[in-house]
Amino acid sequence: MSKVSVKRRILRIRDQAPTRRIDSLAAEEPLEIRLDGTPLTVTMRTPGDDFDLAAGFLVSEGAVGSADDIATIRYCAGASRSGGALGERATEEPTSPEAAATMSAAGQNTYNVLDVRLAPGVQAPAPRNFYTTSSCGVCGKASLEAVRTVARWAAHDDPVELRQATVAALPGRLRAAQRVFDRTGGLHAAGLFTAEGEPLCVREDVGRHNAVDKLLGWALRNGRLPLRGAVLMVSGRASFELVQKAVMGGVPVLAAVSAPSSLAVELAAEEGLTLIGFLRGDSMNVYTGEQRLNLTSGAGYGSAGVPPPG
Amino acid sequence: MSKVSVKRRILRIRDQAPTRRIDSLAAEEPLEIRLDGTPLTVTMRTPGDDFDLAAGFLVSEGAVGSADDIATIRYCAGASRSGGALGERATEEPTSPEAAATMSAAGQNTYNVLDVRLAPGVQAPAPRNFYTTSSCGVCGKASLEAVRTVARWAAHDDPVELRQATVAALPGRLRAAQRVFDRTGGLHAAGLFTAEGEPLCVREDVGRHNAVDKLLGWALRNGRLPLRGAVLMVSGRASFELVQKAVMGGVPVLAAVSAPSSLAVELAAEEGLTLIGFLRGDSMNVYTGEQRLNLTSGAGYGSAGVPPPG
Repeated sequence: MSKVSVKRRILRIRDQAPTRRIDSLAAEEPLEIRLDGTPLTVTMRTPGDDFDLAAGFLVSEGAVGSADDIATIRYCAGASRSGGALGERATEEPTSPEAAATMSAAGQNTYNVLDVRLAPGVQAPAPRNFYTTSSCGVCGKASLEAVRTVARWAAHDDPVELRQATVAALPGRLRAAQRVFDRTGGLHAAGLFTAEGEPLCVREDVGRHNAVDKLLGWALRNGRLPLRGAVLMVSGRASFELVQKAVMGGVPVLAAVSAPSSLAVELAAEEGLTLIGFLRGDSMNVYTGEQRLNLTSGAGYGSAGVPPPG
Repeated sequence: MSKVSVKRRILRIRDQAPTRRIDSLAAEEPLEIRLDGTPLTVTMRTPGDDFDLAAGFLVSEGAVGSADDIATIRYCAGASRSGGALGERATEEPTSPEAAATMSAAGQNTYNVLDVRLAPGVQAPAPRNFYTTSSCGVCGKASLEAVRTVARWAAHDDPVELRQATVAALPGRLRAAQRVFDRTGGLHAAGLFTAEGEPLCVREDVGRHNAVDKLLGWALRNGRLPLRGAVLMVSGRASFELVQKAVMGGVPVLAAVSAPSSLAVELAAEEGLTLIGFLRGDSMNVYTGEQRLNLTSGAGYGSAGVPPPG
């Protein structure tokens, strides 16, 4: 089961004519992330880059900020939740999804439980989530404050500037780097790009949050946090949680193919992120942080081609 | 803040020409659901139909199966997580999102915390999730078993039959019923339809799971569970969790505009659901349960126009 895509026989109807064919489906499997042996979360994900997913999840939660904060990440072989002891055995990340499939075919759920050990002195995250604070119940404002409290880096002073043409090219570049989508049509994509539009890392997953966490884990492992000067591009919508992840990774620019939510825009404004939505062809909506966008051609509005606010 | 959409001034770029305009954003706000006073979950949702969202969430979790299982649902006025006592005061659901906005503008987070009281004798759900069982760790198979254990109804014996033309018309009918999407482009939609394609209930939300939970809550409140003979149509992809929600509501047919995941198809096959994906125009892929589809025209394959399996 642990493959990035799975083949299945389906009935396909086109122009009212039914035919049978083999279809590729995006693989979905649960992954349990444990922290020092204690179950922390279970997420439905596309197998692959699981270590990055776990590390990136901890970046998103504010628990770690550099590779040194994590001592080890290991698959728990024969993990069981029924016994008191974990009975875990350290295993290396498989070199490919196919290798994982081969190994898990032996009958043990080897590759769906990960245990992360933090480095000595690193505080485990308190049970908490970003939607609430202890002081004022649950509301959008509290959600913004919670991010501000936990964030390690600020995007406000990141002076990166992007050419409009560079931004317009990002969806095509993200799409070109998607390997599994072509087969399944069922994966969300997220990519990290330089300010010049060069791809740093692209990940696909059935869960949009997972794709971004895999990027943050990649960045952590490669010593690239905070991601100053970088652009995060996502294939879908921009929710509060995706902006939160950008903030936690120190990314100054988030671009999305589809719409942002109200709280996503509020968080981006508060944290000094540039938030771009509906990025399609030469068209885009700039919700916050427009000073980072260099509009080389425009309707004659000043040097940057932007009409004055108001 | 508690509106279904929020206006904001943005920079819009079309054909490289920037203009300023007022844009409508899909509203996103956290909602904390408490069960008999104990926090159960926090979800980011579009305000509105919150009682249905809470009730439907409990249907999805297998905690309730009829309106009688719930004694009361109330907003907690001035809710605080810092004190030991809830300090709650029963409040009615506002009659409109606008009313909620007006009332919450008074300064208290009145409409983001809900408390559900179960009827006497109804068991509160054990801390658990659908991805794991106590017996065998975490894997896709365990996830399927967990749903089977908790499900109240079986779709296997639901004899409903759908005309292909009826199915093909569903995306258009769902889209026609979306009120907020037109303004924001930022909402997922889910709809319940009769086998003849008549809409029973349509909901929109920034969270795709929330939209379906709001439908299940509506069905619970109106005594329509299990939803035998009904079709659930969603605007996006079909994940494991969405198939799980269909199972928990007793819905025999799930149709999605986009791709299903591998585990979604496995669960649908196991539970006897009809799962249709990539439903666009006259085209669709039928992954499971094709016997419920009446293909009135075809390529001459037998009476139903379907080529034989093989």
